[in-house]
Amino acid sequence: MVYTRNWYGGLVAASAEHRVLKHQVVRAQLDRMLDDMEVGDPFPAEREIAEQFDVARETVRQALRELLLDGRVERRGRTTVVAKPKVQLPLAMGSYTEAAKDKGLSAGRILVGWTDLTADETLAGQLAIEPGAPIIQLERVLTTDGVRVGLETTKLPAARYPGLRETFDYRVSLYAEIRSRGIKFERTVDTIDTALPDARESALLTVDSRTPMFLLNRVSYDQNGVPIEQRRSLYRGDRMTFTAVMHAS
Amino acid sequence: MVYTRNWYGGLVAASAEHRVLKHQVVRAQLDRMLDDMEVGDPFPAEREIAEQFDVARETVRQALRELLLDGRVERRGRTTVVAKPKVQLPLAMGSYTEAAKDKGLSAGRILVGWTDLTADETLAGQLAIEPGAPIIQLERVLTTDGVRVGLETTKLPAARYPGLRETFDYRVSLYAEIRSRGIKFERTVDTIDTALPDARESALLTVDSRTPMFLLNRVSYDQNGVPIEQRRSLYRGDRMTFTAVMHAS
Repeated sequence: MVYTRNWYGGLVAASAEHRVLKHQVVRAQLDRMLDDMEVGDPFPAEREIAEQFDVARETVRQALRELLLDGRVERRGRTTVVAKPKVQLPLAMGSYTEAAKDKGLSAGRILVGWTDLTADETLAGQLAIEPGAPIIQLERVLTTDGVRVGLETTKLPAARYPGLRETFDYRVSLYAEIRSRGIKFERTVDTIDTALPDARESALLTVDSRTPMFLLNRVSYDQNGVPIEQRRSLYRGDRMTFTAVMHAS
Repeated sequence: MVYTRNWYGGLVAASAEHRVLKHQVVRAQLDRMLDDMEVGDPFPAEREIAEQFDVARETVRQALRELLLDGRVERRGRTTVVAKPKVQLPLAMGSYTEAAKDKGLSAGRILVGWTDLTADETLAGQLAIEPGAPIIQLERVLTTDGVRVGLETTKLPAARYPGLRETFDYRVSLYAEIRSRGIKFERTVDTIDTALPDARESALLTVDSRTPMFLLNRVSYDQNGVPIEQRRSLYRGDRMTFTAVMHAS
């Protein structure tokens, strides 16, 4: 008997085991089928798959849901098609735009908004400024080949970037803009979490709220050890893979 | 009007917006409440929270679900308690055991099993061996302070590690064992994805199947550029945060 933990933490016998295993078998077969298909090819309908494998439609639905969350298929209106491979980007100091362009992808930005804030205690500590100091917040959606893949929220000490809001073209790299002001990115400290998008984030990134996401929180430091920015980046887990190459030191 | 994308990809008006925002408000208030509580403190019951904030129990349930998936609270039998902070581990070349010990945590391993396999085309390519060559697979659950946080599946070319299965103590670091055979870890190449656990993985890690996970796939190379291992690590997103510090090169 296999036990699993239900939502409220109690141990329950995995009575759904048989069906769950069945949908995994179906999924494995669909995975193999996908290997031989081209990007954009229409995927067979739920009903056809159910008939072909002689399983319940709910079983097929579960397998398809996993393929969607994994980014192997995507919905186009009422049909399901083979998705493009995920975007592979190195986990790196540089900007998203620069990393995407290095990979030969078109990278775009959509402006969500500029906001004037004041630093709370946490942010003030991160940016080494006084609590209450003015902050410029820039929020942008990141796109790759036209697909919304990330949501980036950057907080900067306003005093250090005079005129930014008036002159900065949100479609280009903010890192390049900051460098053009004589500031060098010397060190970045990231934490990487998983997250589910909230309703607003789901809408901005056009994803289902059950899609696992990457949540990166970064503080960047300049050549003098002064914090440059606090950045929160939410990336779609169904569209992005990070790569990291490490060497023995 | 806010639009969002429903499960099957159609755009629908976010009519649930009001309730969703409400649960986010409740969540933010519970988050602040949590800041003032200690690890292990019992959390108020759903009904009490619903009365206190004058909202529906379903609203409270949604907020609590998010707090659970974020690892801020956890279930102990029928009560909800304040969870320990997530384990922060550097994204590094070394082993999980070594990284956890560096952080002063107790790290353990539970044996799931040893399996004899033969390399398929993909694995053979990754490990630079012939398709069909024998592979030893070792599967272990990783624990931190007694909590199951990860599931690690390592595939090694059997010819290179004679006697491993007979002599290796699964409770210790496999990396240390490999190093003791004169092999140096020179370079690791990781891909990092998000994933949802399947039924078996949920049971082994005692998590709900809706918990977003980190999925790391690694190939390690030795001092001569020869692949050492292919490793698949699934880490609980509600219990683990990765950290990455990068410097300008």
